[in-house]
This record gives sequence, structure tokens and C-alpha cells, in this order.
Amino acid sequence: MKRVRVEIRLKPGHFDPEGDVTAKSLRDLGFAVSKVGVSKAYTIDLEAKSDSEAVEAANAMCKKLLANPTKDNFSVEVLKVEEGTHREGK
Amino acid sequence: MKRVRVEIRLKPGHFDPEGDVTAKSLRDLGFAVSKVGVSKAYTIDLEAKSDSEAVEAANAMCKKLLANPTKDNFSVEVLKVEEGTHREGK
Repeated sequence: MKRVRVEIRLKPGHFDPEGDVTAKSLRDLGFAVSKVGVSKAYTIDLEAKSDSEAVEAANAMCKKLLANPTKDNFSVEVLKVEEGTHREGK
Repeated sequence: MKRVRVEIRLKPGHFDPEGDVTAKSLRDLGFAVSKVGVSKAYTIDLEAKSDSEAVEAANAMCKKLLANPTKDNFSVEVLKVEEGTHREGK
């Protein structure tokens, strides 16, 4: 089993209203924030024989489902999985 | 100016319906996916004198606004910013 992390973010130049509102809210709370960008991250467990096969599959997932080619960029990285103990955090 | 990346994810044990639906959709497309988790990532530009000050501010932002202490875990990392050329991607 391989675990990949896929991040989907808006291409530069696209409006990010959620980021803008978040930046304003943080400034209202007193934080010296100039800009906020919001993106979505998927942690995906999949069957793959190698890291490169996992990345290839994740790229295909982005193109077929997860990313909108008109407005999104995406990045893929392979995460390390501790076999047998899939605990995260506390 | 410092740039931090904040990721908000569900604590283990909380239901992630968006992840479950995404996993099903990916399986329907033929991908050998066993589990998908969805999280949200914020890229935040802020005024801070040091990396540690930036991390401290980002932790406070999570506690005050971005993360729900009942159901979310969060992580913070400082990103490198190329001063003068804030280009991302192509």
C-alpha cells in the first residue's frame, strides 16, 4: 500500500474569495496578514507496486477527477507509511 | 514577510464524508484506492521578524479561527519565499 498526498490549488491569477475573506477575518483579529490562499489536500491510500506507479496513478486521478484543468494546479508527493500502525497524531 | 502553510485535518475517528465519496468516485473510475482523507491548507503571508514568530502567530490563528478544537488537528510549516519574485507554477 502506498500513501500519496495531492494538493489542489488555484492557478495564479484566479480569484480566491475564501482566501480573501479569511485574510480579512485574521486582520480583524489583529494578525498582520497580507494574503491568504486556500487549497485542498487529499491523502490517498492506494495499491501500487512502487512510488513512481503511485505518483503516476495520482496524476491520473487529478486529471480525471480531482483538479479542474481550467483553474487548478496540482502537486503530488508520496508519504511514508508505517506498515501495521497507521496511527496519525493523537 | 514570512509565508506559512497551515493544514487543517480531521482528528482520527471523525467521519470524513467528502473523503469517502471521493474514494468511491476514484474506485468507480478504476483506481485501486482504499481510503481518501480531505484536508484544507492555507498559505498565509504575514509580517514576522523570524520563523519562530511566524509559527507562533500561525498557531494562534489556528486556535482563534482556522481550526475547530473539537474535531480538527492542525500543522504549521514555514515556506521559503523568494523575495521579489513571488511566482508560483507557470
